[in-house]
Amino acid sequence: MPSSTSTHAVLKLDGGYNVGIERSPASFEVVAGNVRDVEQAQAVDGTSQAAFDEELPTIALISTGGTIASTVDYRTGAVTAQFDAEDVLRAVPDLAGRANYRGRVVANMLSENMDPAVWVELAEAIHEEIADGADGVVVMHGTDTMQYTASAMAFMLETPVPIVFTGSQRSADRPSSDNVMNAVCAVETAKADAAEVLVCMHATGSDDRCAIHRATRVRKNHTSRRAAFETVGAQPIGTVEWATERVTFERAPTPREAQELAVSPELSSAVELVKFVPGMDVQALDYVEGAAGLVLEGTGLGHVNTELLPRVRELIDDGTTVVMTSQSLDGRVCDRVYETGRDLLDAGVIEGGTTLPETMLVKLMWLLANRPAEVETMVGRSMAGEAPARTRPWR
Amino acid sequence: MPSSTSTHAVLKLDGGYNVGIERSPASFEVVAGNVRDVEQAQAVDGTSQAAFDEELPTIALISTGGTIASTVDYRTGAVTAQFDAEDVLRAVPDLAGRANYRGRVVANMLSENMDPAVWVELAEAIHEEIADGADGVVVMHGTDTMQYTASAMAFMLETPVPIVFTGSQRSADRPSSDNVMNAVCAVETAKADAAEVLVCMHATGSDDRCAIHRATRVRKNHTSRRAAFETVGAQPIGTVEWATERVTFERAPTPREAQELAVSPELSSAVELVKFVPGMDVQALDYVEGAAGLVLEGTGLGHVNTELLPRVRELIDDGTTVVMTSQSLDGRVCDRVYETGRDLLDAGVIEGGTTLPETMLVKLMWLLANRPAEVETMVGRSMAGEAPARTRPWR
Repeated sequence: MPSSTSTHAVLKLDGGYNVGIERSPASFEVVAGNVRDVEQAQAVDGTSQAAFDEELPTIALISTGGTIASTVDYRTGAVTAQFDAEDVLRAVPDLAGRANYRGRVVANMLSENMDPAVWVELAEAIHEEIADGADGVVVMHGTDTMQYTASAMAFMLETPVPIVFTGSQRSADRPSSDNVMNAVCAVETAKADAAEVLVCMHATGSDDRCAIHRATRVRKNHTSRRAAFETVGAQPIGTVEWATERVTFERAPTPREAQELAVSPELSSAVELVKFVPGMDVQALDYVEGAAGLVLEGTGLGHVNTELLPRVRELIDDGTTVVMTSQSLDGRVCDRVYETGRDLLDAGVIEGGTTLPETMLVKLMWLLANRPAEVETMVGRSMAGEAPARTRPWR
Repeated sequence: MPSSTSTHAVLKLDGGYNVGIERSPASFEVVAGNVRDVEQAQAVDGTSQAAFDEELPTIALISTGGTIASTVDYRTGAVTAQFDAEDVLRAVPDLAGRANYRGRVVANMLSENMDPAVWVELAEAIHEEIADGADGVVVMHGTDTMQYTASAMAFMLETPVPIVFTGSQRSADRPSSDNVMNAVCAVETAKADAAEVLVCMHATGSDDRCAIHRATRVRKNHTSRRAAFETVGAQPIGTVEWATERVTFERAPTPREAQELAVSPELSSAVELVKFVPGMDVQALDYVEGAAGLVLEGTGLGHVNTELLPRVRELIDDGTTVVMTSQSLDGRVCDRVYETGRDLLDAGVIEGGTTLPETMLVKLMWLLANRPAEVETMVGRSMAGEAPARTRPWR
């Protein structure tokens, strides 16, 4: 393993734990590669496993960083680095024999540092991989902001093949790591007949299955649990059984090749999200002045207090598009029921429907850059599964 | 019913709907009171039902406004108004025979306008009612910000009797209204052996039972559903079966009289909550300058991006207490795992543990005003059930 000191070497043991051993040239020889599964690692060291097999689909494996990517030993480490099939198989030997792999590094960052500028690069990279013949794409991403990036891809890309995000809640050096199962399930999903942007992560606390979520409806709803991701207001769209590796869809996804490949990677970066809370200082909206868009995360049906209303009206009069969503997360925003809501509508606030606040932030960035004349009508219309007509308890 | 026009009278029909009838003095006579259940309403019109019954406990019914209170015909309509047992029974005839009632109006507002200043008045009113012998308190509150107000009461009051918040997701003029069942279940909970601040609302989409939630762990997780409220990371602490009106606790609540009545109603109003999202403008923190406290709603284990770090450090150096919580809502914040998190801890950010962001906002307001020297240690320590050691899937 890479070591941060020159005096000690770090070895990964069979059980998944690391040990540090003092560097003394005569005492031991470093065994290269992943030694957790020596047989597979040795097979990977040959060329046969990584050779192109024309019976298998080609999957582009794109890395953006995060816990799952920390297992990947990139060839250069630079952000523009390429990595190839052998690097992929060295990282997760269980991926062998499932597909031909093309590796690509778009970023190498903790996902809390993920940024709309990187979303643009990622959309262009995915577009390129699919144009170059990839039958499916797997994006390795940190879990913290995966839902934001995956949503961005869902609005930016029209895809004839699956684009599947996956990550890891526990790093590869922990016995409970979810990296292998999530990676394998994501590759199987990327081979399936589902031309959408999806998120594939552990479905339960056991290693029994992964859930497949629509990018625009998924949320990281637990800080540390492996089954942290949930589709809000519905069951996940599908599952991958770990024992059989069988991919099943509960609701029909968009079939392969139903749409032509296209990318619209422009985003307005001047869109903010502000969560309303009782007692909030009205100056919380000062920094939004001059922004192209504002997503308010109101209470209940979509409310903020009366005190905030004049500031919201000023922003709208000044040209900012303001969309109301709800911190209740599930259910539909409806501002026609109570007086404060009707005042918001009169001021020009647009109702965000059933779309999650975080997804609306990304959607508004995309709409303002790509369809500025239609923002008001498109906010409430589902473009990538983000605004289902009905939601229901999902657990 | 009160009518907004002078040309029409509004009558509530047996099925719960209202009809408008043109005012023509000769054509009809307005029947006063609630005509939905004529027998009960007539019984209430007498004095026997509302007479003090020393066999029954005394419940203080405090109104702050919201959908459920819209059924109550206050004697004066002013914010300082009192209403008595007969007013209560006229509003919800099903409450008759369960308790002796004392009615009190602390506010009459939509709950999105609820404000820390009103929390102070409410805490003092509840304290007064219990000191005057109430065996339980029911607070009628709008659902939007009920979780914030209930949490505030949990920190401000030590109580020897139940303080039960309830509300209504559907107004009384809709056949699907939940107002009667929620009010009755709340009164039954206020009579139980549970000296805590609780929230009692519909548990399911049917009229089968209400759930009893701890104030500091409950969240309005749906915009419109009757079963909108959920305890995050656990089952509700108890339930009230509607058919039998039986109150059951799954986990033992604090028993009656286990603690002396006390109120500490001071709050620091200079505490803000900011939700971090990718691409956020760092100026979002400008308005927090000089504030006593800031609750950050980070991603995952409790992260914000590296760009925000210098602003957070400046705030802390300037004397602002900064606490990290997670937009994942469920699970524990832990900033020791990744580099950006460790940088936050080095800057002086306090980890918010398992406490919900909205509850932490209220707790920090209370701590800064009441125990300023102990904020750092008390943030992570459970004072009112807000920081359970473990959380688990609850549905």
